[in-house]
Amino acid sequence: MCTNSVSSDTLHAFMVQLMAASGVDATQCRIVAGNLIWNDIVGRTNYGVERLPVMLRRVRAGLIKTSATPVFERLSDTTRRLDGDNGFGQFVGECAIASAIEMAKTHGTGIVGVWNSNFFGTGAYFVEKAAEKGMIALVLSNSFPKVAAEGGLRPVLGTNPFAFGGPRKNGRSLLVDMSTASLAGSTIREKIRTGGSLAEGLVIDDKGQPLTDPVKAGKGTLLPAAGAKGFGLALMVEMLSAVLTGAGISKEVGSIYNDFDRTGNNGHFFLVLDIKRWMTLDEYYTRFETLIAMIKASGDDGDVLLPGEARWNMREKNLVEGIAIEAETLNGLETLAAEFGIKPPWIT
Amino acid sequence: MCTNSVSSDTLHAFMVQLMAASGVDATQCRIVAGNLIWNDIVGRTNYGVERLPVMLRRVRAGLIKTSATPVFERLSDTTRRLDGDNGFGQFVGECAIASAIEMAKTHGTGIVGVWNSNFFGTGAYFVEKAAEKGMIALVLSNSFPKVAAEGGLRPVLGTNPFAFGGPRKNGRSLLVDMSTASLAGSTIREKIRTGGSLAEGLVIDDKGQPLTDPVKAGKGTLLPAAGAKGFGLALMVEMLSAVLTGAGISKEVGSIYNDFDRTGNNGHFFLVLDIKRWMTLDEYYTRFETLIAMIKASGDDGDVLLPGEARWNMREKNLVEGIAIEAETLNGLETLAAEFGIKPPWIT
Repeated sequence: MCTNSVSSDTLHAFMVQLMAASGVDATQCRIVAGNLIWNDIVGRTNYGVERLPVMLRRVRAGLIKTSATPVFERLSDTTRRLDGDNGFGQFVGECAIASAIEMAKTHGTGIVGVWNSNFFGTGAYFVEKAAEKGMIALVLSNSFPKVAAEGGLRPVLGTNPFAFGGPRKNGRSLLVDMSTASLAGSTIREKIRTGGSLAEGLVIDDKGQPLTDPVKAGKGTLLPAAGAKGFGLALMVEMLSAVLTGAGISKEVGSIYNDFDRTGNNGHFFLVLDIKRWMTLDEYYTRFETLIAMIKASGDDGDVLLPGEARWNMREKNLVEGIAIEAETLNGLETLAAEFGIKPPWIT
Repeated sequence: MCTNSVSSDTLHAFMVQLMAASGVDATQCRIVAGNLIWNDIVGRTNYGVERLPVMLRRVRAGLIKTSATPVFERLSDTTRRLDGDNGFGQFVGECAIASAIEMAKTHGTGIVGVWNSNFFGTGAYFVEKAAEKGMIALVLSNSFPKVAAEGGLRPVLGTNPFAFGGPRKNGRSLLVDMSTASLAGSTIREKIRTGGSLAEGLVIDDKGQPLTDPVKAGKGTLLPAAGAKGFGLALMVEMLSAVLTGAGISKEVGSIYNDFDRTGNNGHFFLVLDIKRWMTLDEYYTRFETLIAMIKASGDDGDVLLPGEARWNMREKNLVEGIAIEAETLNGLETLAAEFGIKPPWIT
């Protein structure tokens, strides 16, 4: 095995070891590790194991609970609010989507609004949980302010991810998952690592002037995607996942990277619809594939990819070849492992 | 009164007269007229009375039912599907949002998926109906193909409007209402009327080359807003309002302007959440105004407008001054009135 390619099972065991050494309880270890690795497998490395060092730094600072017990509050047959007990967002989100799926199974629809949570990774991970059960899901989360309002100069909304999707018969679910900003904060960090400059119209300084140097852009303000449209979507995310749930609003949300004096205070929103209430799954698959065939035929051969399709292609590759981990991520994990006296699985 | 400024009551009576003369039943007359005029009052003239001539042309062609009786199918306590009976979309939508509000009142959440409907105007109109009752709403509709997929060359999705909003204590609800395309079809028609060219990156020809002449762009293909992001949103709209409801999918939807051989076959999706299940309305207002104050303070004085705010400003002006109707719209209505031997209220 080459030094930067690891099987997902090996990586999972290693992540669990690192988290357990930080005092994280067994359930959170298992679920958070699975979530991070799922993101690496589908090629969303920005939301994968590279996040573990900063997440465990927050644990050491007492900002994420090692033993969290989220508590549900029943608002109606189809609606629950979840106090995340300041656990890992990936774990709290898993509790939330499971409950939304359960309500949808019984009542056709399930909604869970979450407060007192933390950075939850990608919305697509949770959408896929619902899609696996033959359901459609909308998953939203607010995040620390990094994005200007349309017409504004200073950060006031998070990149506020917006995820949506549903199942396909071939198992390659539709997975829409996007930042409501012109780009994701993690894209800037990637540009800093890999070099190159940003296009204009993405990031501004506090006078409203464009910033194209990714290092300067990292301290700038992102613009919303497509101006007023992205601003409207970011507001929708903030209303449903924070105003309505009781979570932190705007500046009340802490940055996973920069705010080591307070918890994340993030909010999330999960909506799940059971397709079988509307029609048989077979009928749904037929109707959805009709749409997909029209979409595929609307461009030159192979030019049109469905949202999520590149992820499923990457997954097939990674499940065969093992997960390729970037050198910088490897270093971070090795440093962490050394602190706990744990030997990384790629060091023989 | 100047010739192109009319009070909303006078305009409503005139619209009802024109529709009744076309054989439309009293309920549809009243509701459709109210919907069109609401859009004119808030300054969305593209969705106002200027649409009546083409809508009545469809009635005369037998493509919209003059006496429609939409039928609800109960899918769960919180979910209904509505057969619009090929009535006016504005009327069918009114039935749908009323039902979603009623379910939300009783069960916290209400979802109505609609098939067998037509062009429904603006989503914001229906969102406002829910906001008036202290509720949050998401309103979606598919429309005839006019927009390329990301990576595609030919139209496959509609401009698929996406609307969302909720109440404010001052009555000026948040009203997000956008085309998921780079621009609305009605914006191109407006540019053709008013002159000027379009920016690149909005419309392409069938080779993928940009079209900036609005006349040529009218026959071109719109690009999705912000590329893959708008494509993902348009897909979400198509899945929820068409794949799931039984409505026409993509090319199965007829154009209000161009397809006089078939009905609209549009689908819509309405989701309503009762805020009072989550917290008192007062607590919600306080939390929402906290967010709004932060947003307003994030730019120079008066630079940041909330989605819908320009609409409420326009409404205040129009309620005082009367609705200003464009000369071309006036002509269209006068021609229609002459056919029925009806005297327009502005002709003394």
